[in-house]
Amino acid sequence: MKELAANKEIMVRFSEVGPTGVVKSVAYAHYFEDAREEFGRKYGLEYMRMAKNSFAAPLVELTFKAIRPMYYERPYSVAIRYIPTEAAKILFRYEITDLQSGEVVVTGKTLQVFMDMEYRLLWYKPYYYIAWQKRWEVME
Amino acid sequence: MKELAANKEIMVRFSEVGPTGVVKSVAYAHYFEDAREEFGRKYGLEYMRMAKNSFAAPLVELTFKAIRPMYYERPYSVAIRYIPTEAAKILFRYEITDLQSGEVVVTGKTLQVFMDMEYRLLWYKPYYYIAWQKRWEVME
Amino acid sequence: MKELAANKEIMVRFSEVGPTGVVKSVAYAHYFEDAREEFGRKYGLEYMRMAKNSFAAPLVELTFKAIRPMYYERPYSVAIRYIPTEAAKILFRYEITDLQSGEVVVTGKTLQVFMDMEYRLLWYKPYYYIAWQKRWEVME
Amino acid sequence: MKELAANKEIMVRFSEVGPTGVVKSVAYAHYFEDAREEFGRKYGLEYMRMAKNSFAAPLVELTFKAIRPMYYERPYSVAIRYIPTEAAKILFRYEITDLQSGEVVVTGKTLQVFMDMEYRLLWYKPYYYIAWQKRWEVME
Repeated sequence: MKELAANKEIMVRFSEVGPTGVVKSVAYAHYFEDAREEFGRKYGLEYMRMAKNSFAAPLVELTFKAIRPMYYERPYSVAIRYIPTEAAKILFRYEITDLQSGEVVVTGKTLQVFMDMEYRLLWYKPYYYIAWQKRWEVME
Repeated sequence: MKELAANKEIMVRFSEVGPTGVVKSVAYAHYFEDAREEFGRKYGLEYMRMAKNSFAAPLVELTFKAIRPMYYERPYSVAIRYIPTEAAKILFRYEITDLQSGEVVVTGKTLQVFMDMEYRLLWYKPYYYIAWQKRWEVME
Repeated sequence: MKELAANKEIMVRFSEVGPTGVVKSVAYAHYFEDAREEFGRKYGLEYMRMAKNSFAAPLVELTFKAIRPMYYERPYSVAIRYIPTEAAKILFRYEITDLQSGEVVVTGKTLQVFMDMEYRLLWYKPYYYIAWQKRWEVME
Repeated sequence: MKELAANKEIMVRFSEVGPTGVVKSVAYAHYFEDAREEFGRKYGLEYMRMAKNSFAAPLVELTFKAIRPMYYERPYSVAIRYIPTEAAKILFRYEITDLQSGEVVVTGKTLQVFMDMEYRLLWYKPYYYIAWQKRWEVME
């Protein structure tokens, strides 16, 4: 069983800094999204690829924990790790690391479910996704 | 022991709707923020009031669960509930309700810690906050 | 010829405040959007109404001028005014007023064009829009 | 007299795509900001550098024109060009280019003024900025 993971370097936008001088927490959700898109490109699980195969995978759960504040004009990297599950869900774990100090500053996870194009929940994994899991050998 | 709670009606902005026609999940974090500000105004726990008393209460944890999608041009309301804790933390729970159907569409919680104005974590509750808890009788 | 206008009170979100303590300019685009939606509801020119009539009116030009900074926890109002034109375009002018001091703090304008649902530019006004202009007597 | 310019490749975030399948116009303001920060880093005119020299340069005017829609998962680049002026203002012009077709899709400009750290308008150029203009030979 392989572990699928990707890394995305991020640049804090000035507009993501709040009145206290540190990055506003709502920006973490955007950084996770950036990492998810990087993962999608690397492993062929992009939104467009899903849409062509007639399903979507909307986010239904997100959790983040801020361990330390993030600052403007410092280099950071988001590590995203795919956690295989038997259920018809996509689970990712995230870690944002301060590249200067090497410290983890934020952790988090997201859960996605499958929907058809009329936005009805799918209780089973779409065929494309099953094939995708086989190709990357993520399930035993 | 009293229960402190507030309600905030929300209006989905067109720019919060994604390509799938439903509200993008990152908007939930904004709706929770709107509710938190409503709560702060109602009970005297606003950011400004804290800053005058030399502390801040940054968000360090956020979780949301989307039960049903949210749509543009429908009325919603966010209920925010204050959950008293012994620890030097502020905990809120949230429920977004579709006012047409009466159904809960999103739930969530946030956790805030206390920092001084140099952004150092406070391990104890600030004096203003202790007095605030007394005034509202939220601790036994 | 009538003048069509609407007003939308706005509440500055804490997340719209930048590190300098004043509202970040990108938020102005959101406030204009709020006013445009208020106008749409008042006069029956909403996005959904357009979509049902098989056209969209994407923003192709936006200008804002900040005369004074905007602050958190002060009341503001956005006035939106419809400027009739012969061309197949929708032009709005905006003024954000500080309700405490009565001063105009931001002005702006936006221009929208008409597109069909395949996102092709329409060189003529859609039928629904011509009828809308007649109903509200905005053209001579 | 030299021309100062920079280029910033941009990646459209999924959350920047609207219900019509194209990038929402408010995102252009963010792309301009990304380019301005790239310029700042390249030529030593970052926000932090200004703050250390006791001034800020808030945006007071922004204009964009969308010539063609922008799409998700296509490569774009924002070119930013510094336009020297005698006045105590910073003027930039922008062009977003579709790297696949080579077409310009969005143009724009922004104007910044100088403020001291108490957010009072400066009618003269700050010393640091005059020295910066000399160093880069942007004024005759």
